[in-house]
Amino acid sequence: MPIVKIDMIEGRTDEQKKNMVREVTEAIAKTADAKPETITIIINDLPKINIAKAGKSMAETA
Amino acid sequence: MPIVKIDMIEGRTDEQKKNMVREVTEAIAKTADAKPETITIIINDLPKINIAKAGKSMAETA
Amino acid sequence: MPIVKIDMIEGRTDEQKKNMVREVTEAIAKTADAKPETITIIINDLPKINIAKAGKSMAETA
Amino acid sequence: MPIVKIDMIEGRTDEQKKNMVREVTEAIAKTADAKPETITIIINDLPKINIAKAGKSMAETA
Amino acid sequence: MPIVKIDMIEGRTDEQKKNMVREVTEAIAKTADAKPETITIIINDLPKINIAKAGKSMAETA
Amino acid sequence: MPIVKIDMIEGRTDEQKKNMVREVTEAIAKTADAKPETITIIINDLPKINIAKAGKSMAETA
Repeated sequence: MPIVKIDMIEGRTDEQKKNMVREVTEAIAKTADAKPETITIIINDLPKINIAKAGKSMAETA
Repeated sequence: MPIVKIDMIEGRTDEQKKNMVREVTEAIAKTADAKPETITIIINDLPKINIAKAGKSMAETA
Repeated sequence: MPIVKIDMIEGRTDEQKKNMVREVTEAIAKTADAKPETITIIINDLPKINIAKAGKSMAETA
Repeated sequence: MPIVKIDMIEGRTDEQKKNMVREVTEAIAKTADAKPETITIIINDLPKINIAKAGKSMAETA
Repeated sequence: MPIVKIDMIEGRTDEQKKNMVREVTEAIAKTADAKPETITIIINDLPKINIAKAGKSMAETA
Repeated sequence: MPIVKIDMIEGRTDEQKKNMVREVTEAIAKTADAKPETITIIINDLPKINIAKAGKSMAETA
């Protein structure tokens, strides 16, 4: 059941995404007593202009 | 007021989306005592690489 | 894979929720070519004070 | 800590987004006793076909 | 149409919430060319144990 | 920047949550080239009646 949504800056490679979902699944299975096959992960890639910290878009700061 | 967010694999046609939002709105209006005009639905299309089950990205499994 | 999140005002009965998830699942399976067993629905119950339309909390208007 | 997610129709300019995140951050900092640097805003741009009100996709109505 | 979801630490008063939704609605209407009556805001109150920064739950740090 | 939202069945202990956020942060930092201090995790605890798979609420099946 755990459903994990990860919002992050676009640009990660497919390889990074595959490694990330594998390791995040293992981390949750190990610590939250959840079977891996019940864990769903969704990645939402965001352009920098669509993310802001302290009132400033990351397109201006990062 | 019901706000419905549907995350799904990209690739559905506009026709499928139109039918889906109509039928989901009817289903909620009928069962949750909500007026159709108060129901908002958002669809989020996801590439397979951005969805993982059991630690494996759907780009690898589906 | 379709993951459906429904934010709505708290207060629906368990019976209403059971009917709603059944009918929403059928609606999506029928229109979006998705197997029912792949459809996950999450309901998020909200107090009226936590929902606002046109700048006014529903605790003030509904 | 406040994390703000804004789902809206695609098409706003970068300038509009920069102004929006600045003003929303100020509004929350002022009213919810939160330091600006702790406020994160995410914008999710949506095509009209992916948004529905009263069972009708905005691609049909707006 | 803009739908705004605000995840924040529980504990704000109803008064703070009413002021926040009013001011956030004004901020978005002013900067994103959206009519106030089309703006919906949802607040999600979170206990500190359910929020983590840098791997540490806020129940441990704040 | 990665913001992680984890929806899961209520009932995990504070200890499980602390371990989970630590390990998920490490997993993302290691695989997605993100500094731990930029990673925020939100946990959303859900009663079984508010989660459904294949049209059936988990209050009926789990």
